[in-house]
Amino acid sequence: MSVTNHQFRLASRPGGMPDRSNWDYTEEPVPEPGDGEVVVKVLYISLDPAMRGWMNEGRSYVPPVGIGEVMRAIAVGQVIATKHADFAEGDHVTGLFGVQEYAVLDGAGLTKFDPGLGPLQVYLNLLGMPGMTAYFGLLDIGRPQPGETVVVSGAAGAVGATVGQIAKLKGASAVGIAGGPEKCRLIVEDLGFDAAIDYKAEDVRSALKDACPDGVDVFFDNVGGPTLEAVLARLARGARIVICGAVSQYNEEKMKGPSNYMSLLVNRASMTGFVVFDYADRYGDAAREMGGWMREGKLKSREDVVEGLDTFPETLLKLFKGENDGKLILQVGDGS
Amino acid sequence: MSVTNHQFRLASRPGGMPDRSNWDYTEEPVPEPGDGEVVVKVLYISLDPAMRGWMNEGRSYVPPVGIGEVMRAIAVGQVIATKHADFAEGDHVTGLFGVQEYAVLDGAGLTKFDPGLGPLQVYLNLLGMPGMTAYFGLLDIGRPQPGETVVVSGAAGAVGATVGQIAKLKGASAVGIAGGPEKCRLIVEDLGFDAAIDYKAEDVRSALKDACPDGVDVFFDNVGGPTLEAVLARLARGARIVICGAVSQYNEEKMKGPSNYMSLLVNRASMTGFVVFDYADRYGDAAREMGGWMREGKLKSREDVVEGLDTFPETLLKLFKGENDGKLILQVGDGS
Repeated sequence: MSVTNHQFRLASRPGGMPDRSNWDYTEEPVPEPGDGEVVVKVLYISLDPAMRGWMNEGRSYVPPVGIGEVMRAIAVGQVIATKHADFAEGDHVTGLFGVQEYAVLDGAGLTKFDPGLGPLQVYLNLLGMPGMTAYFGLLDIGRPQPGETVVVSGAAGAVGATVGQIAKLKGASAVGIAGGPEKCRLIVEDLGFDAAIDYKAEDVRSALKDACPDGVDVFFDNVGGPTLEAVLARLARGARIVICGAVSQYNEEKMKGPSNYMSLLVNRASMTGFVVFDYADRYGDAAREMGGWMREGKLKSREDVVEGLDTFPETLLKLFKGENDGKLILQVGDGS
Repeated sequence: MSVTNHQFRLASRPGGMPDRSNWDYTEEPVPEPGDGEVVVKVLYISLDPAMRGWMNEGRSYVPPVGIGEVMRAIAVGQVIATKHADFAEGDHVTGLFGVQEYAVLDGAGLTKFDPGLGPLQVYLNLLGMPGMTAYFGLLDIGRPQPGETVVVSGAAGAVGATVGQIAKLKGASAVGIAGGPEKCRLIVEDLGFDAAIDYKAEDVRSALKDACPDGVDVFFDNVGGPTLEAVLARLARGARIVICGAVSQYNEEKMKGPSNYMSLLVNRASMTGFVVFDYADRYGDAAREMGGWMREGKLKSREDVVEGLDTFPETLLKLFKGENDGKLILQVGDGS
């Protein structure tokens, strides 16, 4: 095999927003698989807010990406060469393949999937990590009851869009917080949310008062910062806050905590963090249930697919600027 | 009845620490009870951190004390005159009697108790609200398991001292955070905590690292501020933080939130507020269980009793200065 593999490697740790100077675009031949290894052709790469955290030095729930290492990324691809008994040429697989065209892996962390449930990019969205994150965070931690009010921040994003739709499926009302009129229109008109709050144009506190007259029973938080404080000020008694992310804070030098966290006491409320990987043994069940909802037209999966591995540094920034429309995915080559 | 009643009424709302200028010391005759009313001679008055919050204008889980009103306080006393069928002269009662020598009440919110379980002041501590707060907050929200590590802030205070002792009774190890060598000595040597951290003399983060090598499973927080941040940095996976108070912040103009709250995500941890009044229907069971432990010598109740209603403004400050040694109680007259 004399194919060339292109890769993005971390060149330096950014202080705020990462730019092209933080990356090295490298080129090397794709090796033959060793015993027990497979070579995967990477087709679609998931670009996620968590990537910004992986670029920092500090401890998180996964270690940082080292300087000089290929940037970590979840992706889907197809096996093109194999010396592993469990994987055949042509198998569709997902795993941490990194921001590159080809990945060589042993079997660990490599998961085969049946590509028949939807287009390949959906396995990086509704049928992948964002879908799993929405499903388990909302249903296991948030536990919405019929008639309750669920608020989700980052509502037009990959996780948020699914959270609101599942809330509706479970009989709760869904209020989304998103940036800009187009995203707000989308989640209400296309995804069926009951209301949208445009945090760029509205005062979130007073908008929440209007949209949630009985208070907020479940808050699924992807953004942190002032949005979290605004929702804390509107909690219903016994509210559950699901801490999924704090994307508003990832590029800040110093994280800010919610100054009104004592609202948890007044309202007998909880704030709980979770990591989706803990639910790995239930991914299959969740995918089957969500796939069923999708086929029945009750649950939509929306992807913003950008073509070209070489666009990675700029495409990644769309996430932090709130410019992506649906789950941000990088298509490698022609995606087939 | 021509007895004089002395009272402390709120004269103005303090910005920071309250002083004598925020109070009016007033005098009026004690009225005869009307139909359905009782007159209670107040014997012991509980001085609590929550009082500071009641002096503020803002919304809390109970309304603020109005300007000119007798300061709200939980107390124990004895019925000296009655026109209420459920209460006889000589009955021991507890309720929100206020900072005064005599209280006239209808039956609502007045609770009779059997004074045989311990000295009267213990009904404002282990057998009263602090004991109930420790019991339900730790056991219902914190849910310590044998072998786990429980950390409590304000550990030498009324609630904290009981939290640590109950943690030990349940087979967990107990680490207390308190201010000054005397309090630290007390909780370890007299109350049986495994370790104490003196936040005035030690770096709490590194002291926690030594005292909790496997991380913190349960944190019962009475103080908030930098102590909460230090514990967030040491959570064990699946940790439960019980938000009981934030006494370090009550005199601050602007509350600070924990900047590292995303540790909840990394550690799959929760932070939950609770209000002890929600457990009122289980107070009796809790008092019987804790009274039993007390009689067996397994659970100590420590009170710091200051004599004289007129010392109230200065005595209250002992709480915020951390000068009280055990539950702070104001004794009215000779306490009998």
